[in-house]
Amino acid sequence: NSISTNSSHPRRTGSSLLCVCWTGCRHVSKAAPQAQMEWDYDGPCMKTAVPGPRSMVLSPCSYNVDAINFFCNYEESRGNYLVDVDGNRMLDVYTQISSIPIGYNHPALHKLMADPNNLSTFVNRPALGILPPGNFADKLAESLLSVAPSGMTRVQTMACGSCSNENAYKAMFIAYRNRERGPGGPTQEDLRSCLINQEPGCPDLSILSFMGGFHGRTMGCLATTHSKAIHKLDIPSLDWPIAPFPRLQYPLEEFTRDNAAEEARCLEEVEDLIMQWRQKGRPVAGIVVEPIQAEGGDNHASADFFKSLRNIARKHGCAFHVDEVQTGGGCTGKFWAHEHWGSDDPADIVSFSKKLLTGGYYHKTDLQADKGYRIFNTWMGDPSKNLFLVEVLNVIRRENLLEEVTRSGKALLQGLYALQEQYPGLLSRARGQGTFCAIDIRDDPTRSKILLKARDKGVLMGGCGERSIRFRPALIFKEYHVALFLNIFNDVLAEFK
Amino acid sequence: NSISTNSSHPRRTGSSLLCVCWTGCRHVSKAAPQAQMEWDYDGPCMKTAVPGPRSMVLSPCSYNVDAINFFCNYEESRGNYLVDVDGNRMLDVYTQISSIPIGYNHPALHKLMADPNNLSTFVNRPALGILPPGNFADKLAESLLSVAPSGMTRVQTMACGSCSNENAYKAMFIAYRNRERGPGGPTQEDLRSCLINQEPGCPDLSILSFMGGFHGRTMGCLATTHSKAIHKLDIPSLDWPIAPFPRLQYPLEEFTRDNAAEEARCLEEVEDLIMQWRQKGRPVAGIVVEPIQAEGGDNHASADFFKSLRNIARKHGCAFHVDEVQTGGGCTGKFWAHEHWGSDDPADIVSFSKKLLTGGYYHKTDLQADKGYRIFNTWMGDPSKNLFLVEVLNVIRRENLLEEVTRSGKALLQGLYALQEQYPGLLSRARGQGTFCAIDIRDDPTRSKILLKARDKGVLMGGCGERSIRFRPALIFKEYHVALFLNIFNDVLAEFK
Repeated sequence: NSISTNSSHPRRTGSSLLCVCWTGCRHVSKAAPQAQMEWDYDGPCMKTAVPGPRSMVLSPCSYNVDAINFFCNYEESRGNYLVDVDGNRMLDVYTQISSIPIGYNHPALHKLMADPNNLSTFVNRPALGILPPGNFADKLAESLLSVAPSGMTRVQTMACGSCSNENAYKAMFIAYRNRERGPGGPTQEDLRSCLINQEPGCPDLSILSFMGGFHGRTMGCLATTHSKAIHKLDIPSLDWPIAPFPRLQYPLEEFTRDNAAEEARCLEEVEDLIMQWRQKGRPVAGIVVEPIQAEGGDNHASADFFKSLRNIARKHGCAFHVDEVQTGGGCTGKFWAHEHWGSDDPADIVSFSKKLLTGGYYHKTDLQADKGYRIFNTWMGDPSKNLFLVEVLNVIRRENLLEEVTRSGKALLQGLYALQEQYPGLLSRARGQGTFCAIDIRDDPTRSKILLKARDKGVLMGGCGERSIRFRPALIFKEYHVALFLNIFNDVLAEFK
Repeated sequence: NSISTNSSHPRRTGSSLLCVCWTGCRHVSKAAPQAQMEWDYDGPCMKTAVPGPRSMVLSPCSYNVDAINFFCNYEESRGNYLVDVDGNRMLDVYTQISSIPIGYNHPALHKLMADPNNLSTFVNRPALGILPPGNFADKLAESLLSVAPSGMTRVQTMACGSCSNENAYKAMFIAYRNRERGPGGPTQEDLRSCLINQEPGCPDLSILSFMGGFHGRTMGCLATTHSKAIHKLDIPSLDWPIAPFPRLQYPLEEFTRDNAAEEARCLEEVEDLIMQWRQKGRPVAGIVVEPIQAEGGDNHASADFFKSLRNIARKHGCAFHVDEVQTGGGCTGKFWAHEHWGSDDPADIVSFSKKLLTGGYYHKTDLQADKGYRIFNTWMGDPSKNLFLVEVLNVIRRENLLEEVTRSGKALLQGLYALQEQYPGLLSRARGQGTFCAIDIRDDPTRSKILLKARDKGVLMGGCGERSIRFRPALIFKEYHVALFLNIFNDVLAEFK
């Protein structure tokens, strides 16, 4: 399936620099036959080390600069290729921490910007919760509601992933207390005590999360995040239960028995913790989990694990929150990673952000707050992002991108298996679903060197966990991009043998 | 000073409905002479009650609908006038909860959208913290840094107000612990314990806030928010100190002695709380305060109060965080409300959002986290909002809008004083700075009726606190808009005499 190109090509500025494709050209010839995707580039093209001289002088010392990798030329970036301000063109297998769904400067998104009917949505950002635009319901129906998870017909948009999870937690707390309270409504004591942070108005409830989980960095989210010390150090937190997440052996299909035992151990611990925290007087109102732990090191678990976990939540009266901020949007080969579980009732809440372009969460009806201003803020998302999402979903459907992802993902994982056999002391634990793949490197310093070396050869990847490399390409990452990537990655690895 | 109009007028659709200006026309004649602002409408124009029949059928039951007032036609809205889907045109004195800086569909913002150089910024949202665009430093310099508060040269953008405050709190916690720790850096015990939410890695630190304060609704912010029960009910919180905010008598200049005594009482309480919480083993890392408590009921305090509070923070080693999410951006007649204090060193952190179009916070150098990934998330703001902000600031400067606000604000407050004398049993406590004004209504049910009645007559206002109405017009709200507003408001009040 080739992407049907569009007449409204992204703007091309008149850069006349000669492109010395010292990595790209050498490898393109080895790549699989290239399908038509006219607006994409045909390979990486490196002119300088990265960051190059122009990037080096740009650093804005007025900003948090320590994390900045280099500065980009987004005008010139296209498809799977990110171009930097030094004119280096890199195959992007990380896509802005997994947040660019259909590549850079997709013609469909430029076409949207050219439509004068859309301008006022960008210029006049409303307080969506009180004064939505007239087309709001239609745009929700065309975008988020058209891909609603099984059993969910309601959605709440938010500005980012952390706000989505924070508000999902609030929805779970509110539903829990409303259920406890029954039809009477809050007491005067509830209303008085909540204003000064005290019980019973601010109840001692908790959210159960997993070691290695990542759910964002605001204080509520952070109390459920247990990925890396740098995410949490020095921030006050809450005494909430933390369960072990299964540490499985890969490939999963070769270790089914051991893995099932490990998952059973974790599930037992979950039930123990729910009981313990209830006895502590800090009952578990909700359980939050990622379908694949991403920041924490691309840790997978089986469909059975998640279905059992969902049942445990139901049994103990905890809401079940599946955080699809990184896994959602098609990168696993299904639109939502939880679809791989094959459940009709996968969750009570599913949160999203990143590739969905807007944050938010779907929820079942009983997790709707009983009053409008309980889940609320000024912007409640940004309707201009909903416009983009309509187009992204159209492209995904028109170009069968979920099938493409499944196909590319198989090629990528097979390639990683092959490299792992070729470099046994260097690589291990290749794993993935769709193109949402990862592999472990022998140690963290070697991983850092590999990431930098690959970047200098024109491939952008990211790390996760203690010593993993994660692959997060756009949904338009085709089999020939996989071949191109594997060739360059192989070259890089050869230097570390 | 008239707004210099621009050739790129907003799109006008071909609505052919006859406009029955049954409130607007009657009052326009009484208004002050109208200055040139061609692209603005010349008065309200009501066709139906609000919400009208078209609004009533639009309700998206898939969304949090309880708070929705009505549906809007943002294409047709212009300047100070919000148009709804039923063709009603209302003078907007609330501006999307104080978040529309220069009115609807300002020509300068449409012009920006028409520039093809800007398109890629909308289409390719980067992970700003790692891969910013090449023009990032320039756009920051032209926008946020050009209006940096006194003593601050650093800024961190975020997606919304809550995220801004959450991350500002984190910056204060990190700085506090780094100072305690000295040059040695975190211990292994710090790094291990933080992953499981425990001390010393997750230290028992606190933020001191004020009764009536509002700083957002995510869990960290919410622990410092004490405005209304509906904002906080059922959400677990933290044992952080809450000081009384001065309850002053208005007009301030008539009650200077009583007010000074009340402020002294509150400041004493602040010092007591800092001491108490230190003894509890939960030291105060920062103090957060609004220059005018907005959601909590437009509560003012004197410049002396804030300068003394800032000194108390300094004396006790607490960072001083001024939350300008609602007060910032010019509505008080100065760009930042804290400028009215006349201090060279007003704060350690100033957070913003709403009229600044992007969230974020300024901070002093010693509140910069020591490592790049400590204050971090995927998007870290949205550079397309920085583009808009550049234009907004240009308009503010070009059209001397801060002077306009000061002038309109005086007229508005004088008008409110006059109405208060005219309706002594109904209105009280008129107060304000610039156009950031408020007045109290005799009780909450009457307030609700007045707000609805005014809306049906073509004026949109908002409530705050227990029985206040707050005025939050755009910066282009001129003296003749004040006159128009006062006429309609007078008519409404007459029905409640």
